[in-house]
Amino acid sequence: MLIDINLPHSKYEITIDTLPNLTFDRKVLIVTNPKVGGFHLKYLLQKINAKEIYIVTLPDGENYKNMQNLEFLLDRCFDHRLDRKSLLIALGGGVIGDMTGFASSIYQRGVDFIQIPTTLLSQVDASVGGKTGVNNKFGKNLIGAFHQPKAVYIDTYFLRTLPLREFVSGIAEVIKMAVVFDSEFFKWLEINDLSEDKNLEYAIKRSIELKANVVSQDEKEAGVRASLNYGHTFCHVIENFTNYSTYLHGEAVAIGIIMANELAHSLGFLSDDEKQKIFNLIKKYNLPTYYKVENIDKFYETFFLDKKSSNSKIKFILPNSIGSYIISDDVNVDDIKKVLEKFTDIYIEND
Amino acid sequence: MLIDINLPHSKYEITIDTLPNLTFDRKVLIVTNPKVGGFHLKYLLQKINAKEIYIVTLPDGENYKNMQNLEFLLDRCFDHRLDRKSLLIALGGGVIGDMTGFASSIYQRGVDFIQIPTTLLSQVDASVGGKTGVNNKFGKNLIGAFHQPKAVYIDTYFLRTLPLREFVSGIAEVIKMAVVFDSEFFKWLEINDLSEDKNLEYAIKRSIELKANVVSQDEKEAGVRASLNYGHTFCHVIENFTNYSTYLHGEAVAIGIIMANELAHSLGFLSDDEKQKIFNLIKKYNLPTYYKVENIDKFYETFFLDKKSSNSKIKFILPNSIGSYIISDDVNVDDIKKVLEKFTDIYIEND
Repeated sequence: MLIDINLPHSKYEITIDTLPNLTFDRKVLIVTNPKVGGFHLKYLLQKINAKEIYIVTLPDGENYKNMQNLEFLLDRCFDHRLDRKSLLIALGGGVIGDMTGFASSIYQRGVDFIQIPTTLLSQVDASVGGKTGVNNKFGKNLIGAFHQPKAVYIDTYFLRTLPLREFVSGIAEVIKMAVVFDSEFFKWLEINDLSEDKNLEYAIKRSIELKANVVSQDEKEAGVRASLNYGHTFCHVIENFTNYSTYLHGEAVAIGIIMANELAHSLGFLSDDEKQKIFNLIKKYNLPTYYKVENIDKFYETFFLDKKSSNSKIKFILPNSIGSYIISDDVNVDDIKKVLEKFTDIYIEND
Repeated sequence: MLIDINLPHSKYEITIDTLPNLTFDRKVLIVTNPKVGGFHLKYLLQKINAKEIYIVTLPDGENYKNMQNLEFLLDRCFDHRLDRKSLLIALGGGVIGDMTGFASSIYQRGVDFIQIPTTLLSQVDASVGGKTGVNNKFGKNLIGAFHQPKAVYIDTYFLRTLPLREFVSGIAEVIKMAVVFDSEFFKWLEINDLSEDKNLEYAIKRSIELKANVVSQDEKEAGVRASLNYGHTFCHVIENFTNYSTYLHGEAVAIGIIMANELAHSLGFLSDDEKQKIFNLIKKYNLPTYYKVENIDKFYETFFLDKKSSNSKIKFILPNSIGSYIISDDVNVDDIKKVLEKFTDIYIEND
């Protein structure tokens, strides 16, 4: 199964299938982490033929996606004397993909890279579209580049070793895609179970189709691509406050979706019924739905570190029904704080 | 006087004239160093109108063009809450321009920047063409990006405070341009004196025209742009060995040109007469012409860290006459080492 990305300066294919045999007449550096490497490196190496193959292992986890590890990776590229024709391969989740992509965009002013995502989250979202980068003390993905991969190979075989919690985290991005773009897909998600292989493959395919369509229209997020950040404006603040370690990204996205929906609802965009439907779908997969806001003003201030905010305005992506959204950068500060107020209690699991 | 750069994704103007008045409806961050800022910040601030203006000062010198100072600059961008619509302005020489350009290419995945070069070297070469980056322990400009400025403003007023040694260093890049592309310009340089204002303006204009023409054909150095690296293959090794501190960049380029000419001559490309003419022009400006190679094998090995080398081949730009060159990546190792042998004596000034 093939999906194309078509950009003026770059075209590439996303393959959803068993990983093909790959032959390269150049040096290849595979970037992975100890866990993924332990499970899957052997499988990958059986499929790859190259002039020289090197392997670099980075520590596992979002809080290692920083400049320090980026420099470590770049130094290994120099150690192995990679040149401008060499290729980097990211074997792992979003952290490995983002760091490998960013390193390949600035190593000697740019070399090629390939994405082989091994988590559901990176298969349905992060591996497609060329956003690369690292986090820093100011926030998430604040240093980075748009650098498209040469190919993306999605093989659900890799998901067999994925812990349930990480698998479920990926579903949050699938739900995001459905709410923003596709009410039919949302209905399909309500009645189908993603633990079944054929359903999972369909959900991956549909999510990537929706994303590929957006990226092909607006690579650098001048307009429509911002819609993919539904739930992420809140999510990034939560991740920042919890040092990228309490929640998996998809978990924070799930909470961010709930918060964005509260805002959309309070502004009269999203109906009570549809807000509940989205809540129920998130609950179906036991994703978290609540984060206790300790300090409303501090939470609010942290929005401004988001890349989407500009001229001191925060950009919110707000569903006005399932499958449709508006982007607003002039939500009143009081309206925002009133919504945050709802998240200041000790959490009590509700319906 | 205007020169255009035309790239598929980017067009911009290079103005060679008194710095115009500039008005921006966005936040502006000016990056400079203490010396240049001391001389010229006031002049620049008189010309700029913007929503908010911030100033960041980086230490002066090629050995500060590293990741550490890049991160310092990025942190200041966050401190001042620059957003994706903000603008960085580089006020300084190549170091300031390269670092500001690189920071603007990766800050929030890319913001605009403007070059206001204050050295001859950056006016005739570095500020044009979008090469940005930093050095590291493996070599020069090895981490970076292609990121075109939105405009380049060249005002020879800034050169009045430039130390003679730095001024002369810039002439090496002018000579490089003439040798590679334009024998008429070379002849003009032989008979005219660049200490005269009108001659200097012509030399700047002609150098930029030649560079703009090459960059417009080949932004990312897939082909013809490599010619601009005439002299630089040797230069980068010398700079590496001397920790970027013994020579100014143009001085190391001058020596690199002499070495490249020796190689071109020994391979039968460049005549004795033309080799001497280039030597004489370099001598006319008291640029250095000799670097003592301590260890031929180590010098040779260090070529391979150059970005231009790939698949274990070193790319040399070799003039076959003045105004014409060949690019070769299969020069015999013995031929290279024989040329390096000529540079192993204690230096005795000759002509």
